[in-house]
Amino acid sequence: MNFLTDEYLDTYVKKMEKVVALRHQIEKIVDEVMQTKKSNLFLLGVGGTIAILRPYLHMFKTMSNIEVYGENAAEFNLTGNPKLTKDSVVFIMSDSGNTKEIKDSIQLIKKIGATTIAGVGTKGAPIGEMVDYCVYYTDKDTFSADADYLVQHMFFTYLLYKRGEFPNYEKFVSNLEVMPQALAQVKVKADIQGQDFAKKYHKESYHIFTGAGNTWGETYCYSMCVLEEMQWIRAKSVHGADFFHGTLELVEEDVPVVIIKGEDESRVLMDRIEAFSKQYSKKVTVYDSKDYELKGIDEEFRSLLAPIVICAALGRINPYMEYATGHNLSFRRYYKVVEY
Amino acid sequence: MNFLTDEYLDTYVKKMEKVVALRHQIEKIVDEVMQTKKSNLFLLGVGGTIAILRPYLHMFKTMSNIEVYGENAAEFNLTGNPKLTKDSVVFIMSDSGNTKEIKDSIQLIKKIGATTIAGVGTKGAPIGEMVDYCVYYTDKDTFSADADYLVQHMFFTYLLYKRGEFPNYEKFVSNLEVMPQALAQVKVKADIQGQDFAKKYHKESYHIFTGAGNTWGETYCYSMCVLEEMQWIRAKSVHGADFFHGTLELVEEDVPVVIIKGEDESRVLMDRIEAFSKQYSKKVTVYDSKDYELKGIDEEFRSLLAPIVICAALGRINPYMEYATGHNLSFRRYYKVVEY
Repeated sequence: MNFLTDEYLDTYVKKMEKVVALRHQIEKIVDEVMQTKKSNLFLLGVGGTIAILRPYLHMFKTMSNIEVYGENAAEFNLTGNPKLTKDSVVFIMSDSGNTKEIKDSIQLIKKIGATTIAGVGTKGAPIGEMVDYCVYYTDKDTFSADADYLVQHMFFTYLLYKRGEFPNYEKFVSNLEVMPQALAQVKVKADIQGQDFAKKYHKESYHIFTGAGNTWGETYCYSMCVLEEMQWIRAKSVHGADFFHGTLELVEEDVPVVIIKGEDESRVLMDRIEAFSKQYSKKVTVYDSKDYELKGIDEEFRSLLAPIVICAALGRINPYMEYATGHNLSFRRYYKVVEY
Repeated sequence: MNFLTDEYLDTYVKKMEKVVALRHQIEKIVDEVMQTKKSNLFLLGVGGTIAILRPYLHMFKTMSNIEVYGENAAEFNLTGNPKLTKDSVVFIMSDSGNTKEIKDSIQLIKKIGATTIAGVGTKGAPIGEMVDYCVYYTDKDTFSADADYLVQHMFFTYLLYKRGEFPNYEKFVSNLEVMPQALAQVKVKADIQGQDFAKKYHKESYHIFTGAGNTWGETYCYSMCVLEEMQWIRAKSVHGADFFHGTLELVEEDVPVVIIKGEDESRVLMDRIEAFSKQYSKKVTVYDSKDYELKGIDEEFRSLLAPIVICAALGRINPYMEYATGHNLSFRRYYKVVEY
């Protein structure tokens, strides 16, 4: 069974090209927002969407002097954050564009008077109507996470550029133009690994996922939003920096460990975890952004792009896992099914 | 079998009283450090120690205007943080006083020239010798986590007081004087729940732990450092704000869910998770700081003290779990046993 058809790839590339073409719209929003002085930046999401905003917290920390805060909407709605003022900018990500916690957050934020920008995966969805600026980037579909990252990369690298912290922006966005094709090739290669992973491990009742640096968010997101939510399979994700402080003791010969490697400074840590895990478990899987060629992408941007590469690669597990377990990826027993 | 002897309680109270008596030493350190202007504060630990520093990130966020960053030592050593300068203060926590990642961090931090303060649980340990200021607070023993919190509470509430952000400090520390006795009573009550938990669940191969607000750190720490590291039992911890975005789908009639409730704003969220979990699982355990009287403690400080209360309560699971599983709490197969 092969789920990666030419038609799928063709559609994927076209959709991602449309996303990359949003560049000018995104730049215009950032230009407008930056016309008045802003004090700080908030990245707001919940569950998967705050997880995939984490790479940018990492990016701002290492590349920028900006004051930036990550906020989980569910917590923000109860606890607030006194640092969020009318001079703040809040960037919001929502695939469905209709997440309850995020809608509640936006209402609170609008009362404070901060500027709100959203990336929304579903055209015309409520969240897009509620914020000051919105980019609708694709109809909600199975490619949404890759698109999320592309949109976010464009927003935040342009913001850095405008602040004088990313002089190579022009070169970077011209790289992005070839990303849809490069990502399609990632999918072709990862499809084999995805088939293999599903074949070997679809009966496992428990997985350890670990990652660090700018791919930690995707590690957390994939294990929780795909394995737990869509397959009802137990998946413990642990940050690489904590792996050797507890979770390591669970590693045994027959315990599946999935190691996610990007190309930033944290790679050293993941190398160490890989060596350890391979010594004590026979079920180690490594997803490494370095395994993908990314034709046309300059070496200097590979690390920055690793979260998208890993996301595109991991996504190829899904159809094979669904087929092997027989468990429909879109079934939920509770989420948006029952009241709670 | 009852492991909570009068002798244990007596020793516990005396040790905690010694910790509380460190107040003046702690105040003197903060006074000295604050004599020159500082730009920001870093809280640094790894594994359990960064987890139990999380309540203070929450405290600073809700009660202070201070610029504060949490750093995992293992990540900091590779990635650094440009916001850490010679004008920063770094607070470090280490029970053993000999954690490799933290020693490496201190060397980096000293090169930068920032001021270092450590709370160290083992007298004369290397980390105490490396930093500018150190409080040794107890010999390494089974009470260390409760002591960690007390020391940290004293440091950070006094810092807030000095900044004019916690006017009730004097009242608070006079409350702390009765905390050793109040915590002993927590242990008496929690001992029954600990016995019960171990009896019911010692054969379970998997637990979900969830918490939020200022008790999230302890939730994360207990599941990773006790269940995973000391008992080799699988324990997924998930922040309450993310619970409904993935992990909820794993809840079934026979899946154990441990819900940790403190007394801050996030309680609403935990109430919702409790109601949901009790509807779909027959194995729900709630640890709620409100269940403990805390005689002599003013109502206004209960929320702030919840992490210590929860820590003292959860700790009473340990001896019964050890007895029921037969698995020695101090055995490790890898950590500080093999090279990696």
